[in-house]
Amino acid sequence: MPVTLSHTGDMNPDEFRQYGRQLIDWIADYLTHPEQYPVLSRSQPGDIKAQLPAAPPEQPEPMDKILADFENILLPGVTHWNHPGFFAYFSVTGSMPGILGELLMAALNVNAMLWKTSPAATELEDVALDWLRQMLGLPAGLDGVIMDTASISSMVAIAAAREALDLDVRRRGLAGRADLPRLRLYVSDQTHSSVEKGAITLGLGQENVVKIPSDTDFRMRVEALETAVRSDIAAGYKPFFVCATVGTTSTTSIDPVPEIAAIAQKYNLWLHVDGAYGGMAAIVPEMRHVLAGAEQADSIVVNPHKWLFTPIDLSALYTRHPDVLKRAFSLVPDYLRTAEGDAAAVKNLMDYGVQLGRRFRALKLWMVIRTYGQTGLAARLREHVRLGQQFAGWVDESPNFERMAPTPFSTVCFRACPASVPEAALNGLNEGLLTAVNETGEIYLSHTNLGGEFTLRLAIGNIRTEERHVARAWECLREGLTRLQKPPGLL
Amino acid sequence: MPVTLSHTGDMNPDEFRQYGRQLIDWIADYLTHPEQYPVLSRSQPGDIKAQLPAAPPEQPEPMDKILADFENILLPGVTHWNHPGFFAYFSVTGSMPGILGELLMAALNVNAMLWKTSPAATELEDVALDWLRQMLGLPAGLDGVIMDTASISSMVAIAAAREALDLDVRRRGLAGRADLPRLRLYVSDQTHSSVEKGAITLGLGQENVVKIPSDTDFRMRVEALETAVRSDIAAGYKPFFVCATVGTTSTTSIDPVPEIAAIAQKYNLWLHVDGAYGGMAAIVPEMRHVLAGAEQADSIVVNPHKWLFTPIDLSALYTRHPDVLKRAFSLVPDYLRTAEGDAAAVKNLMDYGVQLGRRFRALKLWMVIRTYGQTGLAARLREHVRLGQQFAGWVDESPNFERMAPTPFSTVCFRACPASVPEAALNGLNEGLLTAVNETGEIYLSHTNLGGEFTLRLAIGNIRTEERHVARAWECLREGLTRLQKPPGLL
Repeated sequence: MPVTLSHTGDMNPDEFRQYGRQLIDWIADYLTHPEQYPVLSRSQPGDIKAQLPAAPPEQPEPMDKILADFENILLPGVTHWNHPGFFAYFSVTGSMPGILGELLMAALNVNAMLWKTSPAATELEDVALDWLRQMLGLPAGLDGVIMDTASISSMVAIAAAREALDLDVRRRGLAGRADLPRLRLYVSDQTHSSVEKGAITLGLGQENVVKIPSDTDFRMRVEALETAVRSDIAAGYKPFFVCATVGTTSTTSIDPVPEIAAIAQKYNLWLHVDGAYGGMAAIVPEMRHVLAGAEQADSIVVNPHKWLFTPIDLSALYTRHPDVLKRAFSLVPDYLRTAEGDAAAVKNLMDYGVQLGRRFRALKLWMVIRTYGQTGLAARLREHVRLGQQFAGWVDESPNFERMAPTPFSTVCFRACPASVPEAALNGLNEGLLTAVNETGEIYLSHTNLGGEFTLRLAIGNIRTEERHVARAWECLREGLTRLQKPPGLL
Repeated sequence: MPVTLSHTGDMNPDEFRQYGRQLIDWIADYLTHPEQYPVLSRSQPGDIKAQLPAAPPEQPEPMDKILADFENILLPGVTHWNHPGFFAYFSVTGSMPGILGELLMAALNVNAMLWKTSPAATELEDVALDWLRQMLGLPAGLDGVIMDTASISSMVAIAAAREALDLDVRRRGLAGRADLPRLRLYVSDQTHSSVEKGAITLGLGQENVVKIPSDTDFRMRVEALETAVRSDIAAGYKPFFVCATVGTTSTTSIDPVPEIAAIAQKYNLWLHVDGAYGGMAAIVPEMRHVLAGAEQADSIVVNPHKWLFTPIDLSALYTRHPDVLKRAFSLVPDYLRTAEGDAAAVKNLMDYGVQLGRRFRALKLWMVIRTYGQTGLAARLREHVRLGQQFAGWVDESPNFERMAPTPFSTVCFRACPASVPEAALNGLNEGLLTAVNETGEIYLSHTNLGGEFTLRLAIGNIRTEERHVARAWECLREGLTRLQKPPGLL
């Protein structure tokens, strides 16, 4: 049925109803059986583009045709992050209540830049982030603000730390100033690349992001941190920021936050805790310890869009210094002044970050937290951790595989290491194994590099992943290894 | 009906179907009659928060209750950007096909950081942005990449310009370097605050954002630009970036882009064109001239979420130097390396900006462009401009109102100026008038400050705004003025 369009105005509401219901039904079916699709798209570079017209349509096109193209052209090019066999990177979930939240957000389409431009969006953000803070066991006095991604959250945290130096950087900038020392940040060799990218963006320079070596368990070596800070001070640098990670990207290792906090306090560094993935585990009462020390942080990031069933994007940044954040970022032209803002009677979200435009993201988080409740969220996270530990156990018991790192959460680093294959050939073998299992379409794993060793990562975080899916992944890996080891003549 | 929840897994799909359909129906009704709500929320600071529990729910809550709270507690705190009487800031639209696009995006929940993690998201982004480029009449050779907001687009453009200087800023940073000159950017006194905020964020310093005065029509004075650049060079500064705006935020003035481009070329400045709002008008064939000169830009931003009926957020950044953008931002840790990326066979979107996480935003833009077609989009923009010109005409004809700036698009700057009120009292009168009309709940206007004069802004950009709504706004304003001018005794 073609959509009726006048020369002005939106779609016909009856047609919106019809196609909206059709999409809701499609989504319900899709999410019930995402495993009907290969998890990793089989598209080759350029496949999708080749099927799409090079020029935009002159005339309106019927929604039936658009949705048919979605299904026939685009869908084969989608890698299914919803597939229960998605174990790559960090496995995430846009849960059903989260999807309903996104639908409402899109319909309301408010820009929550100012309190006035949607009071509910601003106030619900405060409430939902305070709920999350409580669930994580973090102390009162940490104020939350929603960002789009952890990349932005961490960059904003570094910018706040820079502002807190009182070096007049906001007004005068960093360049061409004889009075400014070289500023230095400290991360570990396992810290997420976005912290380094944030420092590059802020004009601090990649070489001033000092990568502290980690120990054999991939945790920042605190004595090396202190040595680096002291030697930098002696060399005339100004250390100002350290990032500790709870759940690093490669191995999900947990930096010794309390010890790093002590160094931060001793040398007056801004302590940022990146708990984008692992921090969320603190919702599980018996895992609350993973955020030990974070209560001393100047800023903390956790990502509900990573491991709290909230559709991408929603990153929560907490800080004990919202005033500093505001000093770093608030810039209010006349046309954005409001009586409430001038009277400081409200929080205007645009004052706390780079972006003026802000979606009503709190709505989806609020719907997710209420739908599952604290116990329901904790139960799901606990189950993911149980599945991860179980898989780690299978690896440990197998003579043909070995674990490459501790498994504090639900992500397992491992590799195949059959006795018949010499050490020097293991990287090639595991790279081949990764390709082989990903080509099955049943599972999708990613990799990392640990001390030069090609390492497989199996990350569990999808709300639809059950024990049988993890068991099947293990089967695929063992089958894949067997196939790879067969002498070519027997094929 | 309470939602049935096991200890793991998502909502029951049948319940998702039920509540999804319910929301689709609610949205269809809502968008058919958004004027049933006051356009500007009547909430007072703290009203919403006071009605929400301070602690998160322990147990799962039924979706019926959540949606009832949405309607009873949150909705009164929503300012209705969908209301046809929303004339504040820039009036935007999340059209019905755009909402359906957001629904699908949320359901797929892909992270398009790498081509591999969803080839369709990456390739559709190229196609949809190339369609938009063609619609705007911009030359081939401008590569597009989707950002969340114009704030980020402009910041990224400045960062690319900084990188293009070949001063090793990425590696060495800006601070503590005797070899670096003070870098300077040029904007007009009408340029959007986000450009200044971008420069602050990048460590360039607010005082190095030189605000060139504008002429009586609020257009950057080109001779003043050249004078400033020359005097800065003489003083040892390094000018490197100039922003020209097509449709400034306050008055929607159009900077003389061709002349600014000539200065940019002469002094080797990166030319950034901010067409976030006004640039979109180039889709209307007879208005294509508004982007004259933009074909010479190094980067251009236009915002489909502003005036192309796409739900927030989606900003399109075009550049002739995607290689420079990549040099500024690409940072690929081992765990994000892919065979396709290593072979440079694909574009990995994470290489072109700050954020690693990227939603499948192209999908909604593609659905909007196809649903309306070029002619349908142009017809809607043309109608908005017609309505704006009509309102401007009413102002011009009235003895009690005056226009405060030219009206090149659909946004009118004006004020009440009845002969009975002395000039010195006009600011107070207009501030009172703005409050009075916004309190009606029928219309929502915002203001700006033009040379010290409190100015009302009526911005037309909502797909549901018709001539009758604009006429009603005019009526409200005249009625409001009459009420304000009545001697108190007659109340």
